[in-house]
Amino acid sequence: MPVNDNKKEIIRLLRESEGKPVSGQEIGEKLGITRAMVWKYIRTLRKEGYDIRSSPKTGYILDAAPDRIDPEELKTILSTDLIGKVISYYSILDSTNNAARDIALKSAEGTVVIAEKQSKGRGRMGKEWQSSPGGVWLSVILKPSIALENVSKITLIAGIAVTNVLRDIGVDAHIKWPNDVLVKGKKICGILTEVSAEVDKVDYVIPGIGINANVSLSDLSDEIRKDSTSISREMGKNIDRTAFVASLLYELEQQYIKFKTKQFTDIVEEWISLSDTIGKEVKITTPNRIIEGKAVGITEKGALVILDRNNKRQEIFAGNCRYSN
Amino acid sequence: MPVNDNKKEIIRLLRESEGKPVSGQEIGEKLGITRAMVWKYIRTLRKEGYDIRSSPKTGYILDAAPDRIDPEELKTILSTDLIGKVISYYSILDSTNNAARDIALKSAEGTVVIAEKQSKGRGRMGKEWQSSPGGVWLSVILKPSIALENVSKITLIAGIAVTNVLRDIGVDAHIKWPNDVLVKGKKICGILTEVSAEVDKVDYVIPGIGINANVSLSDLSDEIRKDSTSISREMGKNIDRTAFVASLLYELEQQYIKFKTKQFTDIVEEWISLSDTIGKEVKITTPNRIIEGKAVGITEKGALVILDRNNKRQEIFAGNCRYSN
Repeated sequence: MPVNDNKKEIIRLLRESEGKPVSGQEIGEKLGITRAMVWKYIRTLRKEGYDIRSSPKTGYILDAAPDRIDPEELKTILSTDLIGKVISYYSILDSTNNAARDIALKSAEGTVVIAEKQSKGRGRMGKEWQSSPGGVWLSVILKPSIALENVSKITLIAGIAVTNVLRDIGVDAHIKWPNDVLVKGKKICGILTEVSAEVDKVDYVIPGIGINANVSLSDLSDEIRKDSTSISREMGKNIDRTAFVASLLYELEQQYIKFKTKQFTDIVEEWISLSDTIGKEVKITTPNRIIEGKAVGITEKGALVILDRNNKRQEIFAGNCRYSN
Repeated sequence: MPVNDNKKEIIRLLRESEGKPVSGQEIGEKLGITRAMVWKYIRTLRKEGYDIRSSPKTGYILDAAPDRIDPEELKTILSTDLIGKVISYYSILDSTNNAARDIALKSAEGTVVIAEKQSKGRGRMGKEWQSSPGGVWLSVILKPSIALENVSKITLIAGIAVTNVLRDIGVDAHIKWPNDVLVKGKKICGILTEVSAEVDKVDYVIPGIGINANVSLSDLSDEIRKDSTSISREMGKNIDRTAFVASLLYELEQQYIKFKTKQFTDIVEEWISLSDTIGKEVKITTPNRIIEGKAVGITEKGALVILDRNNKRQEIFAGNCRYSN
């Protein structure tokens, strides 16, 4: 069995025992290795941040696993064909989107850039994105053969993927147009989609996904905190971020396959069912104008449809959205 | 008088004499400099490629001016406020669009990249663009505060600018949607617009403009030649490319100002009046589909409107267009 599989098996055995000690002999027998080898693996795991107590008489106890996204484990458990087949993992980056843009032209489609920390996380329209410890900060390099007019659809499918994965673990997430994911009105995820293209053909699209996973709200600034929440806050416990990222990338791939093979109306239907924007009175700010009215739908091109104050139908591809109550 | 003005004045005097010799004494008197200084300038001009004959008894004759875009002269005669205030001039580049993309984020809006030669000129959708000697190959860095959905409009205004400037010098140019300029059905100019953006906001748009100015058609490959023409071919003589580029940048700026300050419907009207696509039967190929039908107009968002075989209205932002028949 390869080294990494042995380490993972040991972690699995210790986790299963739920705080009861597991002897080195028992582990060695299950893995077919000597007790000395078990001890060697334990020391390696400790170096990697696993808090493993040992007592000569009873055995080993896992007190705490490090809260990190483990790229090796991620590769093992990932069940995708495209997204995440190449993973660039960093303990710190200025921004995963910056790093992804730097390598995009020469990288394979589906390459994922993940960082434990972002020193200059970016939100939409040049805003700062506070990337506190414990979050999921990742960017995906996609190279769909689409025209520029279809790029905003990628934001929509990324929002669907995040929302589905959050609902799968019991977090009641909703999409706020165009690309925030909210829980009870508070932001848990933001998506920044960037693109390089000629007018006729996209070179690459990079959805950057930031999720307050195991983020302590006290790490956020006062201004951001009041409108934010996190997975750990909603669930009352930290999640296994490695497993979560694996699910997210899988779901993203499913949505991407749908996007490429199905009618976009199917995706629009799913988006609407997950969104809390449709039906609300909204105020949309774009670089050129402000539109106030009622959000009534999404077009087959991915634009939000607003009935404005004069009951005129307006289609908006991008902008800042506020709910007017 | 600064050195460059003296050089320009000498060229002007020699040009005005139309092949008759001008004495060093006459030049010296007009410029208020010694005959030795005149001689010094003549030597410099020769180094810059001017073919100036001299005879001790009669004076100087300009046999030929170098056919190059003179960036210093261009700066002097340019009457724009934004476009071309910074000019990056190269004798050779792989592609002016590549060079412009490399410097776009840190460059001022309006920066223009010009090259006498392109070793890897790019056309739309990854096609090669043959950049033969004597052409105008330039890219303009624009940073309009617009959403992604409006980028194709920049291609339209670039097409209008090129067509207007060609018509001003007597070349009967027409726009073929989306971004070729034709004379009697043959291509004289191609425009490749590239963009870097988030979905909500453009970082930069680079219209790359390639014009067969003083291009000898025999320099083009057989396949390209049969559908191509050049300004020199149409006019029966070479043009002053420096003056032409100055006019082009001026016209581009006028169109850009219109784009930013007027209703887009005004621009659409001008585009339609300059285009030969509207009213024609066309076959449009996009990454996702092929649409055949009659081109009937342009929407306020800049999309071509086709009435397809089933008389259904189709709006297309980008694609490859062929005229049927």
